[in-house]
Amino acid sequence: MDEPQPITVALLGGGTVGGEVARLMAVNADDLRARVGAPVQLTGIAVRDRARPRPGIDPSLLTDDAMGLAGSGADIVIEVMGGIEPARSLILAAMAAGSSVVTANKALLAADGASLFAAAAAHDVDLYFEASVAGAIPILRPMRESMVGDRITRVLGIVNGTTNFILTKMDELGADYAEVLAEAQALGYAEADPTADVAGHDAAAKAAILAELAFHTSVTIADVHCEGITNVTAADMQAARDMGFVIKLLAVAELAAGSDGEPGVIVRVHPAMVPRTHPLASVREAFNAVFVSADAAGEVMFYGRGAGGAPTASAVLGDVVAAARNRRTGGRAPGQSTYARLPVLPVGAASTRYYVNIDVADRPGVLASIASTFALEEVSIQVVRQDGHGEDAGLIVRTHQASDEALSRTVERLRALDCVRRVVGVMRVEGEA
Amino acid sequence: MDEPQPITVALLGGGTVGGEVARLMAVNADDLRARVGAPVQLTGIAVRDRARPRPGIDPSLLTDDAMGLAGSGADIVIEVMGGIEPARSLILAAMAAGSSVVTANKALLAADGASLFAAAAAHDVDLYFEASVAGAIPILRPMRESMVGDRITRVLGIVNGTTNFILTKMDELGADYAEVLAEAQALGYAEADPTADVAGHDAAAKAAILAELAFHTSVTIADVHCEGITNVTAADMQAARDMGFVIKLLAVAELAAGSDGEPGVIVRVHPAMVPRTHPLASVREAFNAVFVSADAAGEVMFYGRGAGGAPTASAVLGDVVAAARNRRTGGRAPGQSTYARLPVLPVGAASTRYYVNIDVADRPGVLASIASTFALEEVSIQVVRQDGHGEDAGLIVRTHQASDEALSRTVERLRALDCVRRVVGVMRVEGEA
Repeated sequence: MDEPQPITVALLGGGTVGGEVARLMAVNADDLRARVGAPVQLTGIAVRDRARPRPGIDPSLLTDDAMGLAGSGADIVIEVMGGIEPARSLILAAMAAGSSVVTANKALLAADGASLFAAAAAHDVDLYFEASVAGAIPILRPMRESMVGDRITRVLGIVNGTTNFILTKMDELGADYAEVLAEAQALGYAEADPTADVAGHDAAAKAAILAELAFHTSVTIADVHCEGITNVTAADMQAARDMGFVIKLLAVAELAAGSDGEPGVIVRVHPAMVPRTHPLASVREAFNAVFVSADAAGEVMFYGRGAGGAPTASAVLGDVVAAARNRRTGGRAPGQSTYARLPVLPVGAASTRYYVNIDVADRPGVLASIASTFALEEVSIQVVRQDGHGEDAGLIVRTHQASDEALSRTVERLRALDCVRRVVGVMRVEGEA
Repeated sequence: MDEPQPITVALLGGGTVGGEVARLMAVNADDLRARVGAPVQLTGIAVRDRARPRPGIDPSLLTDDAMGLAGSGADIVIEVMGGIEPARSLILAAMAAGSSVVTANKALLAADGASLFAAAAAHDVDLYFEASVAGAIPILRPMRESMVGDRITRVLGIVNGTTNFILTKMDELGADYAEVLAEAQALGYAEADPTADVAGHDAAAKAAILAELAFHTSVTIADVHCEGITNVTAADMQAARDMGFVIKLLAVAELAAGSDGEPGVIVRVHPAMVPRTHPLASVREAFNAVFVSADAAGEVMFYGRGAGGAPTASAVLGDVVAAARNRRTGGRAPGQSTYARLPVLPVGAASTRYYVNIDVADRPGVLASIASTFALEEVSIQVVRQDGHGEDAGLIVRTHQASDEALSRTVERLRALDCVRRVVGVMRVEGEA
């Protein structure tokens, strides 16, 4: 039998992920050939610095002409450089040259996925991006393909390893945010400038991608309500522990009704208290997980390593095999599906529960006046706990479901009360107990 | 724009799953049309009893001529009847008529998947079977497609809801197997004849399917070493609890070295102790989960409802959308991949840990004689705990990793010792703590 034509692959980016992709393509060459039905041949690697030593990588593959390689007409172009530009221009050039594209670029997809999907459709090529959300965990393909006959109603994700590592350590050690951040930086779990992670921006990009796939409607990062973890205190952690909860940075994408009663989606990233019995509560350290609720399937969870060179490369190579098989069989990746055209609703329209920790003056009638403030906004209280006496009197309130809007108005009213010295902590509560 | 030609679907089986498939196709018709790019039209439902009332299902769709419907040349034939025959003949007839097939039939796939895959290839049609393992949990597509660029080394699954429900209740209530089985039957979690579940046969079929996909080698249910849960006692449960473990019925598929040092696979189903800190330990009641270890991805887990009409129908409809999209784009499902041709090794070649509970005579030198028995087979002891005195003296031993063969030889030797009154419990221990 004649050897079939090789599937050619151009790699844009030679960093942690790119290096691991090149290494795995070499190590697993025989398996990849058997699984694709043809050899998979790396034709070039675009890097910033050709002089840097890269053990295990054939130096003759390296080039600093990224645009030349992107437009070389390889069967598949892998983009693992990250960032908006030049990644977008390179991907568009690759598609224009007839290449299918595999990318891990969450920032670009969340900012301007529509133009990439449009170009893929126009040039009749594939766009795969499993590695853009939750690293090695297969989550996009299951949502895009396996659950596509069902109606997804809600996605709850722990999709940022840095913040989950920090929150896990704060929970374990009872330590404050700043202290644990320093440890995470020393261990390499947090960047020197951790803003993109701790402010929630990285999670917000992934939330936008998940929301678009779940609800078949256009969502970009600009649509995501985003709060980071920098204000989470050791006291919040302690209060969560006392109530049987744990604090996680959640990416939430859900169907909801707008003020006109019409359906829409809400996408939000913020710290939240989750019951310790919820499957997401046991997702610790740098692990990621995505919890999906659907009408027929019920609740499904995907768990694993969300970042790192090898896990991300594993997801990239799965997409490479899919794109390569399509080259051979004439198949196509599912395109962008935004037929539902649902409006993105403000976070105030979400239905949530709240935890509120209030420092109050210890005098008769305080609880009554707090309770009537909640009642004014029609927010029903589930639990109140009173701690301490005199100067240290504290009140912890957990509410039933109410609109996020009513809950934040309640907190504003509490702050204005004479008997309230300070609202010490406010946090949403998610996940059924 | 002209309305595209509908994708026609014939449904074989109108039971719990079939009824739910028909219902969801009607309820989600608009979404399915948008996601496929064409209407998806049910052309008939083959049932055993046309007279039985089926609320919500158009009676004119019902037929008792299953073979006629299977061979009608629909774009897609869904088989949710179960069992080997007539399911196999119907599926082969459907493929011969040019139909792609979506099936939930684990028994047939595990017994004779090769002939179905060969027919799909011969007739150039798709064979999808996501619903055959772990119901609504997307696990086959992630393994077949998302992780296909990686090297999977081990799969640990809780893939039978009935036995997991029984083991969970035994753990919670400290009750015996027989007592909990009766409760499970009363609640509908176990069949009147529970043999297929409690003897491990259902899990073994799923283990064979998972092993074939994970290792790209042919595996049938006849290759699976299978032990059920009927011998698990309340005392085993208590011992597991005392050591910080929980007992689960595991489906294990793993790469291993044969006696000649050459690679092979071992597929086994048996009760095992799992550390409570392992992600599989928190999979309770009728939930399923599959834990996959791969070289680059690390550890990934998939969790959700493993059975029931709606969850199974969700998986079936995902496959229907995939097959329908392929009809429109000319794509093809990945075929059977058994290029690796690995031998299936006997369970004795597995490397496991053991828990052994021994009722011993309380006299000096007993521990030394037990310890030297383990040493004779070169099995290293991790922990020994001695309980009670006199008539009730008990010894609980947990070993380090050793070959399953050496471990069972050790247990045989223990049984022959004078100082051993009875070996009360023996169980494998899986999952890193």
